[in-house]
Amino acid sequence: MNTIENSPLSPTARSTVRRYNDRAASSRQALYDVLDAGLVCHLGFIADGGPVVLPSVYGREGNTLYMHASGAARSARIFAEEAPVCVTVTHLDAIVYARSVYHNSVNYRSAVVHGTGRLLRDEQDKRHGMWVLAEHLAPGAWNYGHEPDRKELARVAVMILDLTEASVKVRNAPPIDHGDDIDLNTWAGLLPVHTHFGTPQPEGRVPDGLPVPEHIRKRQM
Amino acid sequence: MNTIENSPLSPTARSTVRRYNDRAASSRQALYDVLDAGLVCHLGFIADGGPVVLPSVYGREGNTLYMHASGAARSARIFAEEAPVCVTVTHLDAIVYARSVYHNSVNYRSAVVHGTGRLLRDEQDKRHGMWVLAEHLAPGAWNYGHEPDRKELARVAVMILDLTEASVKVRNAPPIDHGDDIDLNTWAGLLPVHTHFGTPQPEGRVPDGLPVPEHIRKRQM
Repeated sequence: MNTIENSPLSPTARSTVRRYNDRAASSRQALYDVLDAGLVCHLGFIADGGPVVLPSVYGREGNTLYMHASGAARSARIFAEEAPVCVTVTHLDAIVYARSVYHNSVNYRSAVVHGTGRLLRDEQDKRHGMWVLAEHLAPGAWNYGHEPDRKELARVAVMILDLTEASVKVRNAPPIDHGDDIDLNTWAGLLPVHTHFGTPQPEGRVPDGLPVPEHIRKRQM
Repeated sequence: MNTIENSPLSPTARSTVRRYNDRAASSRQALYDVLDAGLVCHLGFIADGGPVVLPSVYGREGNTLYMHASGAARSARIFAEEAPVCVTVTHLDAIVYARSVYHNSVNYRSAVVHGTGRLLRDEQDKRHGMWVLAEHLAPGAWNYGHEPDRKELARVAVMILDLTEASVKVRNAPPIDHGDDIDLNTWAGLLPVHTHFGTPQPEGRVPDGLPVPEHIRKRQM
């Protein structure tokens, strides 16, 4: 059976990694890992004949990527029209300092997903999509806070994109200098880039005695 | 005189912020601030009729954005053809926890630049572009390490994009809950997201006694 799970990750030319294809990862798990570690994606679509790239939050469940927007947003229209989109998630892991400036680089992980999405119309499907999005952006918040009501669900556009066609690239290596550039008086190496959560800051009306809930206090990145 | 500096940042419809336009910043300095604080951009272009979004390093000098790629890369071809591109830089600053899941959000800064770029052809122009890129990604590395030689300059594609048309959006605010959702037993607030550099890691052939150079050791983010 030709399910998404056992189909190749990169079935057409546009998603075949061309440059530095030794950096290409082809397993579905590699795709999940990059998507699950991210909080913001970049959504690309075509508007008035030109490319548009907008940042967005997202969520993943199985082989479906979820996004949301105001019902009146351009991105909602693109999904309603089932026009082609590209969604990219990138993590910067280190600045790579080579001895030669030409070989300076970055260590990174990126996933590029191609496809045509669609809008969810059914209220229960939209509620489920909002749950996936909430669990990705703010795990635990759905159970802790107030769920969206029917009016809010009617107002929001919930979009999905199948993870059928994607490419994953990872560079995780020291600097590469060639021949004459290897000189032992020049430092070369990695400067790691770390992203982490800071101290939670309560909104003004939160009473002094109210503790930061565990799903926020214990969150790690 | 209608220079880039005194022209409006967002002269056409495609770069006019539509959603949440109270979050739009219109000064050129706001654009510079977002671009200068970033290390990775997302480059959007059209290939085979569909959108493609790829991560890239970049640099800025005045009102010019510089990027580079292998001479054989798709992105180099897009700039050689002077096809329309969109370059977006996003910083995630905080997860916004509202009392209502529907109002969960993120604090962020983003810049979206539209235009048609071009390839630099002259060797001195390319060398200058590589310097701008190096000073952005790895300030101080150009003077410390080995400069690109003529063969390397011939091999690399250096692309420029004028900062003529751009939009900047910033959300920097506490969560917003409405009416019934304001309940004093539910925590709401911000979970800041910080990005910083870690401890430099020397490449294997760096002698034990060689100190990490100051331009790397002192780097802050």
